[in-house]
Formats: sequence, C-alpha cells, structure tokens
Amino acid sequence: MDQLPLYRRLAAHYRAAIETGALAQGDRFPSVRALMGRHEVSLSTAVQLCRQLESDGWLEARPRSGNFVRRPRRLAVRPLAEPIAGQAPDPAQYVGINARVSEFIARGRQAQVKINFSSARSAPALYPAEALKNAATRALRQHPELLVSPPSNNGNATFRNALAKRAMANGMLLAPEEILVTQGCIEALNLALRAITQPGDIVAVESPTFFGLLQVLETLGLRALEIPTSPHSGISLEALQLAIQTTEKIKALVVVPHLQNPLGSIMPDAQKANLVELCRANEIPLIEDDTYSALSNDDTPLKALKAWDRDGNVIHCASLHKVLAPGLRLGWMNAGRWQSRVEMLKYVQSRNNEELAQLAAADFIASSAYDRHLRRLRSCLKTQRARTAEAIARYFPTSTRLSEPAGGLALWVELAPGLSSKALFDAALAEGIFIAPGLMFSNSNRYDGFVRLNCGAPYTPEIDSALQRLGEICNKLPSR
Amino acid sequence: MDQLPLYRRLAAHYRAAIETGALAQGDRFPSVRALMGRHEVSLSTAVQLCRQLESDGWLEARPRSGNFVRRPRRLAVRPLAEPIAGQAPDPAQYVGINARVSEFIARGRQAQVKINFSSARSAPALYPAEALKNAATRALRQHPELLVSPPSNNGNATFRNALAKRAMANGMLLAPEEILVTQGCIEALNLALRAITQPGDIVAVESPTFFGLLQVLETLGLRALEIPTSPHSGISLEALQLAIQTTEKIKALVVVPHLQNPLGSIMPDAQKANLVELCRANEIPLIEDDTYSALSNDDTPLKALKAWDRDGNVIHCASLHKVLAPGLRLGWMNAGRWQSRVEMLKYVQSRNNEELAQLAAADFIASSAYDRHLRRLRSCLKTQRARTAEAIARYFPTSTRLSEPAGGLALWVELAPGLSSKALFDAALAEGIFIAPGLMFSNSNRYDGFVRLNCGAPYTPEIDSALQRLGEICNKLPSR
Ligand SMILES: Cc1ncc(COP(=O)(O)O)c(C=O)c1O
Ligand SMILES: Cc1ncc(COP(=O)(O)O)c(C=O)c1O
Repeated sequence: MDQLPLYRRLAAHYRAAIETGALAQGDRFPSVRALMGRHEVSLSTAVQLCRQLESDGWLEARPRSGNFVRRPRRLAVRPLAEPIAGQAPDPAQYVGINARVSEFIARGRQAQVKINFSSARSAPALYPAEALKNAATRALRQHPELLVSPPSNNGNATFRNALAKRAMANGMLLAPEEILVTQGCIEALNLALRAITQPGDIVAVESPTFFGLLQVLETLGLRALEIPTSPHSGISLEALQLAIQTTEKIKALVVVPHLQNPLGSIMPDAQKANLVELCRANEIPLIEDDTYSALSNDDTPLKALKAWDRDGNVIHCASLHKVLAPGLRLGWMNAGRWQSRVEMLKYVQSRNNEELAQLAAADFIASSAYDRHLRRLRSCLKTQRARTAEAIARYFPTSTRLSEPAGGLALWVELAPGLSSKALFDAALAEGIFIAPGLMFSNSNRYDGFVRLNCGAPYTPEIDSALQRLGEICNKLPSR
Repeated sequence: MDQLPLYRRLAAHYRAAIETGALAQGDRFPSVRALMGRHEVSLSTAVQLCRQLESDGWLEARPRSGNFVRRPRRLAVRPLAEPIAGQAPDPAQYVGINARVSEFIARGRQAQVKINFSSARSAPALYPAEALKNAATRALRQHPELLVSPPSNNGNATFRNALAKRAMANGMLLAPEEILVTQGCIEALNLALRAITQPGDIVAVESPTFFGLLQVLETLGLRALEIPTSPHSGISLEALQLAIQTTEKIKALVVVPHLQNPLGSIMPDAQKANLVELCRANEIPLIEDDTYSALSNDDTPLKALKAWDRDGNVIHCASLHKVLAPGLRLGWMNAGRWQSRVEMLKYVQSRNNEELAQLAAADFIASSAYDRHLRRLRSCLKTQRARTAEAIARYFPTSTRLSEPAGGLALWVELAPGLSSKALFDAALAEGIFIAPGLMFSNSNRYDGFVRLNCGAPYTPEIDSALQRLGEICNKLPSR
C-alpha cells in the first residue's frame, strides 16, 4: 500500500468511507481546495485523487456544482433467461387487452407524474432542435405556398428520396415512389394489417410485445397469437414453426427484428434470412416494424428483413419519430405486393401527410449532421441505460433479472420471484412514479413479473431516487 | 332609341355586334381612346359606354390588358329536380364502390391533366399563405423545442381553445378538452365510424354523397344505405323515416348538413332539429360532417346539428383543410358520448397530431384576419361558381340542369337526358380535362347522368375553353 502514490492511497481511504457508508450516495465530496488543506497535499495530488475516484465510478462531477459521492456498483444483475420454445402456443383469446392497456395509460395521464419511466421516448435535449427548426424555417421561406397547397400524393418527393437513400444502408433497394409516408410507424402498422387481414383473423406476434401493437390488433378485431421470443436473438423460429403446424391459419406475422420492444433483442442475420423464407414458404405476410434499428450501439446499420425479400411478402414499416424528432409524426412504409392497396387505405384513412415536416426532415437527413446526431443519441442512450442498470443492481432485490439490449430506449426488468408488476405499478404511481407493468405487453398475465423502464432521459438525481424508491417498494411488497 | 343617351345607343350597337358574332368571345374591345376617335365622342361617353357593357356582362376588364368581349349569358340553366322520397330504399349492396372510385382517381393521376375539375379544392391563391407562413415561423421561434418534443395529448391546448371559441358561433358549447384534433375531417369520419359500428353494419348516407365517405365505408366493411337528398334542403326526413321502418337496423347516419357534397344543399334549421330528434328517438348515432359550412355565401355562421344535441348522440366532425389551408391536414371532432372511445382509437391509429400546424392555425384563427380571409374566400368562390354556371349555360346542351348552391366549391351538373358521365369522363380525360363522374357518388349507377365540377380556381380563359370543350363533347356524345 505504501508503494502506491499518495493520491491512490487517499483514494482507497475515501473508497472505504463510501463503502462503509460514512460518505453517503449524493453527499458533496470535499473540494480540491479543502482536500489540499485537510491532507496537506499539493494541488496536483488533490486533483489526481478526484480523477481517480471519478474514473472508478465513486464520484460524479456535476458541472458548476462540484463532485458528489456515488455508491459502488454491485456485480451486474443476472441477465434474462431464454423462453421455452418447444411448446405449442395457445391462441391468446380476445381478452380485452385494449381496455387494460388504455386503463394503464389513462391512469398515468390522470396521476401527478413526477418521473415517467413508462413511455418509450427520449428527452427533447437528445434531438437536434435547432437544426430542425432552421430547416423548417428555411422550407417555409423557400416554399412560400407550402401551407396553402395540397400535399403531394404518398409523400414529398425529396423526403422519399432521402429515405430511399438511407434505406440502402439497411440493405433495401427501394425506388422513392415505392415509399409511402405515414403518420409514424403506428399508422404504417395499422395500414399493413388492414391491407392483409380481415376481422377475426389470427396475427402472430412476439411475446412479450409492444402494447401499441396489441391495441392495434384489438381495435381491428384481430386475434393475437403470441410466439416465444428470446431476449437475445428475437422471435423463436422453432416456436413459430410449431405454431404454424398446430394452430389455425396465421394471416400475418408482425416482428420487431431490431431492439425489440420490450426485450431489446436483435435478430442475427442468418435468423432473419430463415424467418423471411419460413414466411414465404408458408404464405404468411411478414410485417417488419423497424422503429428502433438506428438506435443500436453499433454504428454499422442493421440489415432489414426486407433486404431478404424476393417476392414482395415483407411489409417494411419504419419511423423517424424516436430517431430524429419526437415532435414530428413521420413514418414510412414499403408494402411489397400490397403497396397500391396500402396507398389507397392511407388516402382513405387520413389523406397525404403534410409536407413541412417532410421537407425539414429531408433537409436534415441528407446532411452529415444526421449521422453525427445518431452517434451522439446512441452514446447518450447507452450511458443512460448503463446508469439505470447500475441503479437496479444497487437498489432492487438481488434476484431481479435484467435485459441487456445492445441499444434502444428501455430495459426489461424481471422482478424478484413472486412480485407483481401491477402491485408495483399501483404503489409507484401513488408516489408519482409511472412505470409500464409487464401486464401491458401480452394478452395473457404471463409478464406480470416484469416491468419495462424507459431510459430515454439523461440520468439525474431525481431519476436515481425514483429508482431507489422502486427498489424499496420491491423489497417491501408481499410476494404473490 | 334616340331618346337614350349616346353611350346607351352605342352600347346597343356593340351588343348587337356581339350577338351576331361580329365581335367574338375573347376579342379585344376597342380602347377608350379608339372609341373616342371612331365615334367622335367625348372621353366620358366612351368610358360610360364601356362601363355599361361591362355591367351588363358583355365586356370583361382585365387589369393592365384592357377590355375583352364576353358572349351573352343565356337564360339561367334549369335547376335540379327534387328527389322522390316516398319509395322504400334498397340497401345498396357491397358493390365494390371503392375499386370504382379508386380507379377513377388513379386514372386521373396517371393522365396528363391540364384542367382539374375533379378534386374539391380551391386554388392556393385563395388562402392566406403569407400570414400562415409567418405564424408558423413565429411558432418555431417561440417554441424552440417544438419539433423535438412529443405532441400534446388529443391536440394542442391553444388550438383547441381557438376551435372551441369558433364553435360557439355555430351554436356549439364545447370545452377545449372536448375537442379532439385529427388528420382532417376524413380521419374524424373514420374514427367516428370505427367507434360506433362493426363490419357488416348498415350506415345510412345521403344520396348522392361524397365519394370519400363511400371509400371509408367500404374499407371498414360497412354497407351504405342511400337516402334520397334534396339539392335544396338536404337529406329527406320522409325517406329516412321510411328506411328506418322498412330496412335492417341502421347503425349510424352520416350527413353533411351544410353545402352537401356534391349537391350543395343546406338544411333549414327546423329540419336540422327534426333530424337530431329523429335519430335520438330511433337510437341512431348521427355523424355530422361539417367540412364546408364556413364557405356559405352568407357571412352569418350556420348552426351545426350538434347545437341541437342534448344527449351526446351527435358526433361533430370538422376541418380547416378547405377553409383555412389546404397544406395543413387539420380536422377536429367532438364525439359526444363516444368521446373517450374516439380518443383511444385516434391514439391507436395515428397518435397525437404534430403541433406546429396547430399553433400556426391557432394564431391565425384567433386574429381578425381569419374572418377577413373567409369573406374574401366566399366571395371569390361565389364569382367562380357564377362564371362556371354561365359557361355551362353557354356551352352545354340546353336540357342540362344545374345545382344552385349557396356556397362551396362545386356545381352538380345533370347532363342532357341519355348522356353518360362515364363516357364524358373518358372523352374529357383524353384531352387532359379531369372531371368527377356521377358514378363516383353512389354505390348504384343512378348518377351516371351527372358530373361534379369543381369551381375552386379563379376563372381563366383556359378554364373557359375546357368548359367549352366539355359542352362540345356533350353535344357530340351519343345518347344511351
Ligand atoms: C415497436 C414499436 N413500433 C411502433 C411504435 C410507434 O411508432 P411511431 O411513434 O413512429 O408511430 C413504437 C412506439 O412506441 C414501438 O415501440
Ligand atoms: C364532405 C366532405 N367531408 C370530408 C372531406 C375530407 O376532408 P379533409 O380534407 O378535412 O380530410 C371532404 C373532402 O373532399 C368532403 O367533401
């Protein structure tokens, strides 16, 4: 120990003080000047001490406020288990999932929410507000009649052009005219399902799945068939095959191949190829929801399922809402051999999208600023997910398990055995903390032991103490 | 004759020259200076001569080009007849109206259209481009995070406020929170029908009706029951009563009480009250489509059906798309007792509307410029409809009949007996003239003898010659 430089010995001293609790999480750490006085050391030693503690994760520097104590990381939480794929699935009944989801949403809207872990969204600060504002202002100036002229059919040409260019990086060769602009990915999913199904049809989905999709199915009178899905590699092809063999005809399959919501899984390319082929061979239209792929940690673009599509059986649905600008409701789709039907349905349902947002987005997407923005967004989200995971490790019961997504906005948390997400939801909301209970992600009750926590906002002490409260509630809640 | 002032005698001389064809439609009329020389008259006589001819409709002054000859008006075209209301209607079958409408629309999109009489829209020049552009730019400046922040639930508060204020003038007392902002009136109609019907249900509609509505019904799997409708006073309550008594249960009724599309009829207030009561008594949800009421000739706001609604049975759907700005897809609705279901469906179908357009519109609507704009728009449309009606009188076969709407964008033309709108459509499109054939306005073939002509663009020589060509084609087409 004595051979260590002075600042390292001091660091060990302070680390011990934190571990024993003498210095608590959130305490202000002595200033450099105070350290110099207290330990009679040089400026450079005091600075090195702080740097060391910070890089080890025991201190947090807050701009203009000084350094603050962080509690040590515990060992990482256990990852989630793989689902059991070898059982024939029951077609989930029409169980009023929609009423259930809508009730959770409504309760969140009514409550005094202080911390929202429920919505899958990132903070405005993570998006290019200024550049988009300028692009929109420019578009207004360059097209003085924009707001009083009827919008272009199926979308603005420049925007569709920019989208087609970006789609190439994801392995899709689309002409701009093959792209239909929609009100976000959610409208694209509605249109895709309306184009290929009839009320009463069975639609296969991942399990667990994004509750927005379950709402779409329910309001269209469709029945969801839930297919076990791996938190690592996505939908189980084995389970899907079994479902195809054992249940009523599946009229469509909806998957989120990249950063699945809520699991965060990413399908390996080989598996994507097999899925596309399996659907083709069984004449099951495959709807791909690509809302999140641009948010993966890795800057290399992920290949869309559509890239393997040879005969128009894949409907690709995508969105800029979470990637470029939450204030713009911009999505798009290519519906393969259903393209003209989908164009007709879009026109009948909501007419062509307004053009201003499309022009502003086209401008930004075509510039190099877009990739810079994405890299920054990915890295912010990565940090935010890591901080949230640490907090869960620190505050939640040790038997808690956690997803390890390689990107995206959220973590999927398996609560300690016996805990109910509904009970946690109720108790948390009473304190202004809004979470998405696992019950929302299935037509069944099988995910009541899970919650989805959004990590879209920069990590703050308020978020930290909300997570601490959630952990405390988990520790107090009775097991079922 | 000699007792008439000189300028009147000269006017009679020129009128005769025009009537005999010595001076043809579109010829340049001698300048004031030339008239002074030719007839050796004073400046004031020459000016009075021109004024007289102009006010009698024989001359047209074109700014900075001089005066041009107009052919005389013929006697007004005969107005449309009343429908026969006393027959029990057949429930129209599911006859693929949608494929038919979509085919006509697609053919128009593919053709080289030079003159578009088909779409119900006004020219961009009739809308406040500059003011809206400034309002949008201001909104961007005042809300720098607008484009990167999630849009407000159900619509922007300021916008809903402005709408609620305006709705008062139409007899509706709505709290801003009772207004749901939608993607135009078309989305509102979709949501209203989705909220209250199931596939297979019968929905009563006016006959003829707006083809967009027939497309909505078809894509939702609903069956249209067409109720005879008067070109003057709107839907026939007698016929509706008969339908209620004689057909399967009617699950909803959709009406356009003001400036019905395509007839242009306006329901008298007493009849509106009776309709609301009839629907209440028979438990038929009443969907009101109020797309056009702000375009009536009369500046006094028309009373919405919703104004008579006492128990939430009326769903009011409205739009700014044709009234304020064709580049904005802004509609709104109040769904009475289905409000929360409609809010849920809107969220599931397309999420909340973007806010920028709402803020720009709110700004403009709340200013006195809005009423000034509406007055100007109404008067432009009135002139344009009058000029189109004159041209029809001049160029079409004498047995042609015509609607006489007190506002709006379009005229509904009953072709000479035996002429087919389909044949006229084909022949006209071959010459780049795009019309809406009567076939598009019903599930039946009963309006093949009609066409709808849009009058939304300022009258030009090109429009005039297109109408002349239509008249010539009508004169040449074989009778069925
Ligand atoms: C998987 C998935 N698809 C679609 C959507 C909706 O996308 P948008 O906001 O573009 O309509 C979401 C948003 O929560 C999502 O998580
Ligand atoms: C009667 C009627 N309702 C609704 C619409 C659609 O309105 P919006 O453009 O606001 O969706 C139209 C447009 O043609 C119409 O004529």
